[in-house]
Amino acid sequence: MNSLQRRILTDGDVLPGGILKVDSFLNHQVDVRLLRQMADDFYAAFQNTKIDKILTIEASGIAIACYVAERFDVPLVFAKKGRHKNVGNDVLTAEVFSFTKGTSYNVTVSRKYLQPGERVLVVDDFLANGQAVLGLKKILDEAGCELVGAAIAIEKAFQPGEKLLRDAGIDVKALAVIESMSDDGQIVFRDED
Amino acid sequence: MNSLQRRILTDGDVLPGGILKVDSFLNHQVDVRLLRQMADDFYAAFQNTKIDKILTIEASGIAIACYVAERFDVPLVFAKKGRHKNVGNDVLTAEVFSFTKGTSYNVTVSRKYLQPGERVLVVDDFLANGQAVLGLKKILDEAGCELVGAAIAIEKAFQPGEKLLRDAGIDVKALAVIESMSDDGQIVFRDED
Repeated sequence: MNSLQRRILTDGDVLPGGILKVDSFLNHQVDVRLLRQMADDFYAAFQNTKIDKILTIEASGIAIACYVAERFDVPLVFAKKGRHKNVGNDVLTAEVFSFTKGTSYNVTVSRKYLQPGERVLVVDDFLANGQAVLGLKKILDEAGCELVGAAIAIEKAFQPGEKLLRDAGIDVKALAVIESMSDDGQIVFRDED
Repeated sequence: MNSLQRRILTDGDVLPGGILKVDSFLNHQVDVRLLRQMADDFYAAFQNTKIDKILTIEASGIAIACYVAERFDVPLVFAKKGRHKNVGNDVLTAEVFSFTKGTSYNVTVSRKYLQPGERVLVVDDFLANGQAVLGLKKILDEAGCELVGAAIAIEKAFQPGEKLLRDAGIDVKALAVIESMSDDGQIVFRDED
């Protein structure tokens, strides 16, 4: 069991309806020492892959992605969310549907920070329906970059995201793959061994 | 001249109307090695102050604040922006007016992550009109925390933020204090010696 899995068991809160709150250490209050351990685990998972850049989406992906970028010694780019319609050739945009909110939002990246041929690792905190990563893939495709993988902190395996990403040819590695959560707070991780 | 000042001179873009773009290394593409150097500089500025927690606002403050939190070995909390009206006693909210956008937005922090008596250092990327820091101060006051200082990456000294914060009794330390920017791209830093 890795650092993130242990921390989820001790400090994660399971709410009815398949909601896992990790506010106390990951996406509101942040334990930066945990982030560094997670970056080591992501490095172990992708160390044989050539990576030129890390890409994430604001806001909650940024903290994790910083440490992953530092571990691989490459720049980080974070996509901006919910602003800027496509404003011409300088900006790459994708629409992302949020099942949680029932609405779509735009993610945008300046074209100059994604050069053709760059090999990009996408980092995000949660994988549920996979729409955010697919949006970033669309942007990377348009930029002529190669999406070399998706490094996810927490995956909800009971939602369709993982299959959608694998069907799109994306190498998905999640540190904590949750097979099931019961309303009484029981969390079952996928056994990766 | 510190690392951030040097980087602003080499890679910052001055646009007409007092706009400084630092997209290529600070708030879209991010050079995490620079962030670590900046954290060292903030540590030097505040090392004689007892600090229990770092507080910033999503999204662009998060990356810098991670490294400051790690340098002081304390947790980071980032305030959420533009969502959640005040939803009762569990959440602290302040309204922040954005002069850039001409509208207000809410910043919120869960009360449980700001305990009474905690000494909190606020971190942000830009100080211009000071409204974001004043909003965080209101939240900290309501939480019973002490705002021990504002660690700012880039301050525009030709805008009123610094005076407003100092008038509110806040200890402001900025790594790059810009006295003036001309439309032809000339940047003059305040001489701190």
